[in-house]
Amino acid sequence: MELCKKDLPLRTKYKEIAEKKCYRENGHDGNCKEFPYLADLAKNHPRVANKIKRDATKTTGAAWKSEDAGPNRIDRWVMLQSDDVLVQYGLNMKALKPTVVAKLREKAASYGDCMSVAAKLTWFAYQMPDAPLCPNDIKSYLERRFAKMTPHSTTCIVCKEPLSFSLFENAQRGKAEIETAHSNPREHNDVNVGFAHRACNIAQGNKTLDEFYEWVTGILSRAGRLKQ
Amino acid sequence: MELCKKDLPLRTKYKEIAEKKCYRENGHDGNCKEFPYLADLAKNHPRVANKIKRDATKTTGAAWKSEDAGPNRIDRWVMLQSDDVLVQYGLNMKALKPTVVAKLREKAASYGDCMSVAAKLTWFAYQMPDAPLCPNDIKSYLERRFAKMTPHSTTCIVCKEPLSFSLFENAQRGKAEIETAHSNPREHNDVNVGFAHRACNIAQGNKTLDEFYEWVTGILSRAGRLKQ
Repeated sequence: MELCKKDLPLRTKYKEIAEKKCYRENGHDGNCKEFPYLADLAKNHPRVANKIKRDATKTTGAAWKSEDAGPNRIDRWVMLQSDDVLVQYGLNMKALKPTVVAKLREKAASYGDCMSVAAKLTWFAYQMPDAPLCPNDIKSYLERRFAKMTPHSTTCIVCKEPLSFSLFENAQRGKAEIETAHSNPREHNDVNVGFAHRACNIAQGNKTLDEFYEWVTGILSRAGRLKQ
Repeated sequence: MELCKKDLPLRTKYKEIAEKKCYRENGHDGNCKEFPYLADLAKNHPRVANKIKRDATKTTGAAWKSEDAGPNRIDRWVMLQSDDVLVQYGLNMKALKPTVVAKLREKAASYGDCMSVAAKLTWFAYQMPDAPLCPNDIKSYLERRFAKMTPHSTTCIVCKEPLSFSLFENAQRGKAEIETAHSNPREHNDVNVGFAHRACNIAQGNKTLDEFYEWVTGILSRAGRLKQ
């Protein structure tokens, strides 16, 4: 599917290093929109729509006090810029602990990849067992960008159990039970992203899924829990 | 081994609900001591000695602003008391979120169990591959309380790999690479406690080790990673 990709007005102090484009289909009528496929979730499940946007586009976990970015959220594509460029925007990477810098840099991703991730996460969300019905125009859009949608097919990318849409709303100790997850935590793009149970995502940690499966196989072997 | 168990002076506002006893051998000469077996580590590896004391005796993770307990450390035995008793000491459990209360209550343990945990952790620490040499008097004391010590034998209770004493000193993102761990996270006693890699302890989460091994076996099975 060809996308409109018209530049949209930026409301950020990072104007020269930021992007914002229309992701409606090329030749659409009406207004340009950055997240056209989120219209239904934004209206009926705003927490889910906000989570998809946030996880797709923002870094997490940095103890950073920036008015523009919030305490610990920075646009992932801003993190692609060099220290020298960032310092011009008031982000002094050299003032942060090396481990914080590493964590932030690890989350860097291009604007285009972030936009693909948001759409792919939406595609997954609508295929959860108890997901709301996907409006036809959104279904058609997402299927043409990715692949045919199969109701009830979305599983946790780590444990492969079905993932319930209702977990988006549940919270334990203030944390959602469902998290955006990556087959390779150091790559943020639409072929590498999915959802996972919180416990599964935590257990995977900063390992790739392959590394995680090998790691726990070794654990089970040493614990005498693998059938020979 | 029979222990002295003489009451020692308490320096806490929880006098009526606290204990402090001598854990030297019964009939010892010289002063009574609560942690006699930590003398060597306290002198030569104070971070390790402090960690053992702290993990054995304190709760963790509560966002509690109490001058006496510190921001998130409360004696585990204090958490055995009822809400009504605690409120007399200025600890109003009802003012905390239910999930925080649950977490605190889960960490409750008797003073005696905490003291046994501290000694058992010391016994494990001296058996790490690169542990400092255990002074003879301490070795004799710990062996009579638990079992014969085998140099280089301490492994992570989760992954069963040898655990290096040097991990106590390493830190990543401000967190020690080694953590006190429990076969059953809801039981704090000397048969249930040990050390684990940080990543292993995090992966285990609030599951028992048995539950954890079953859980990852299921994951590997569904991911097609188990040999048939």
